[in-house]
Amino acid sequence: MATERDFLRNLQQQFPPRPPVLHGIGDDGSIVDTSGHDREVVVADMLLDGVHFDGRITPPNLIGRKALAVNISDLAAMGCRPTAAYICLAIPRGTADRFLAGVYDGLQLLADEFDCHIAGGDTNSWDGPFVISVTVTGIPFGDHIPLRSQAQDGDFVCVTGPLGGSLPSDRHLTFVPRLAESRSLLQQTAVNAMMDISDGLSLDLSRLAEASGVGAVLEAEQIPIHVDVDAALTDRQRLQHALHDGEDFELLVTLPEDPRQWSRSVPLDVPLFPIGRITSAREGVWLQTAAEIQPLRPDGWQHSV
Amino acid sequence: MATERDFLRNLQQQFPPRPPVLHGIGDDGSIVDTSGHDREVVVADMLLDGVHFDGRITPPNLIGRKALAVNISDLAAMGCRPTAAYICLAIPRGTADRFLAGVYDGLQLLADEFDCHIAGGDTNSWDGPFVISVTVTGIPFGDHIPLRSQAQDGDFVCVTGPLGGSLPSDRHLTFVPRLAESRSLLQQTAVNAMMDISDGLSLDLSRLAEASGVGAVLEAEQIPIHVDVDAALTDRQRLQHALHDGEDFELLVTLPEDPRQWSRSVPLDVPLFPIGRITSAREGVWLQTAAEIQPLRPDGWQHSV
Repeated sequence: MATERDFLRNLQQQFPPRPPVLHGIGDDGSIVDTSGHDREVVVADMLLDGVHFDGRITPPNLIGRKALAVNISDLAAMGCRPTAAYICLAIPRGTADRFLAGVYDGLQLLADEFDCHIAGGDTNSWDGPFVISVTVTGIPFGDHIPLRSQAQDGDFVCVTGPLGGSLPSDRHLTFVPRLAESRSLLQQTAVNAMMDISDGLSLDLSRLAEASGVGAVLEAEQIPIHVDVDAALTDRQRLQHALHDGEDFELLVTLPEDPRQWSRSVPLDVPLFPIGRITSAREGVWLQTAAEIQPLRPDGWQHSV
Repeated sequence: MATERDFLRNLQQQFPPRPPVLHGIGDDGSIVDTSGHDREVVVADMLLDGVHFDGRITPPNLIGRKALAVNISDLAAMGCRPTAAYICLAIPRGTADRFLAGVYDGLQLLADEFDCHIAGGDTNSWDGPFVISVTVTGIPFGDHIPLRSQAQDGDFVCVTGPLGGSLPSDRHLTFVPRLAESRSLLQQTAVNAMMDISDGLSLDLSRLAEASGVGAVLEAEQIPIHVDVDAALTDRQRLQHALHDGEDFELLVTLPEDPRQWSRSVPLDVPLFPIGRITSAREGVWLQTAAEIQPLRPDGWQHSV
């Protein structure tokens, strides 16, 4: 096991500061150049062994990757690109150096891919399970930061990809945060509300609807079901997975324009699946099938605290 | 136990956004106004049950308080005032609501005292012990951000208060971050290097000396020993506590001017104890007693990872 001194020295070498990080790992804090930006967006997500990954079998590089990816997904939902990330670790005593090296390699690979800098953090050893807590700062792509409270009556509800089956597959570890999609959407069309789907479509859409003071009606037949959902299940069962599984990390978007009726000269270059409408005539989230419309109970991944 | 929805609603009510936080808890991220500031400093510290506090006996408000205080102490060491804090929690299943309310009350009290805003974060429940990971953004008091790598040959090494005995007392939970002292020092005199004493004077000074490429000689008789150190011990034992205990959260400062020879019209309004000198003639940290000078082994709180 490396001492903290050697460990920090390795981190300093692996993550030398580069703009906008003026001074990185090694002091009590990191210094970031914020000139030229009026607003910053900050996101924070903590991953726990046994909850968000399984330390016994999940490859360490995918643990590091996911810890950063869920935060970049949050920034995408806020219409922002990442600037710098701060990594706090609780490390079980006796953890092998190669496990930690793997975690940092996974962080670095994704950070480089998204032009985000690992700029600081804190490491501690203890007798508990592995914890990785990541905070990331970001800069808005443009003037408009779409919030979950801004959905409007009549908006089309869309997702950027098929849903369900993320956890039994490795997709919850290997997904690509929808940053490019966020940027394109904000450039190409008016987006009212946006969030990422982490806890399941039914639960996350109910939060968006509640925050906006509106209701939403989903069209059961329009909801794209991921190939990760077992094809041997009935259609009804497969739909339940798409509605409730969570950890999809697709963007959930509401916009006034129907993407199927897109009539501009430049084609919309983001995959966008219209799955329903926002309505001020109902409260909560409803599911419309060929036969009936019924309330959709939001029973995705809800942390009881 | 509250649901996540109720919990978040309570947090939103307890911590409504105020400038420079434009949009706080409730979305995927928080929005902060950074206009008018060229640089931002970011600090991060994670506290673990059984390591930094004892969840069975430490009052929850003091757990929350300490989690923010250690971060504000880091900002003080970087010559910065805090702006916004982001709180990530891992909460053992079955934790009482009043425990969490206590943690947040402790956070809020200190945040208000230091004009820092609780702007976001993440909460998760699990089967492990309580974890609180805090990231705080800050703004420099002035142009100069003192780093630990900037100590100069001949500098006076000073601390802002007496050391030792913090852990057996409650001082490691109730200490006041030296933010006012940092601001006054930077306004009133030239500060070369600065850091806070978290892991013990001997270890933290060895880090400062190494980062600056210099050595340091401490005067044993000048080191102020805290009244929290057991008076029944021998002088030699009491000195060992002051040198190695850690969790003092006093500022460790190096400056070219001897504070005992302060000759300006305005008195230096910060308690500053000169305890030694920086030297380029030696490597490492040395302890000078009346009888001899010998190397001081840095054996404070070193996390093995």
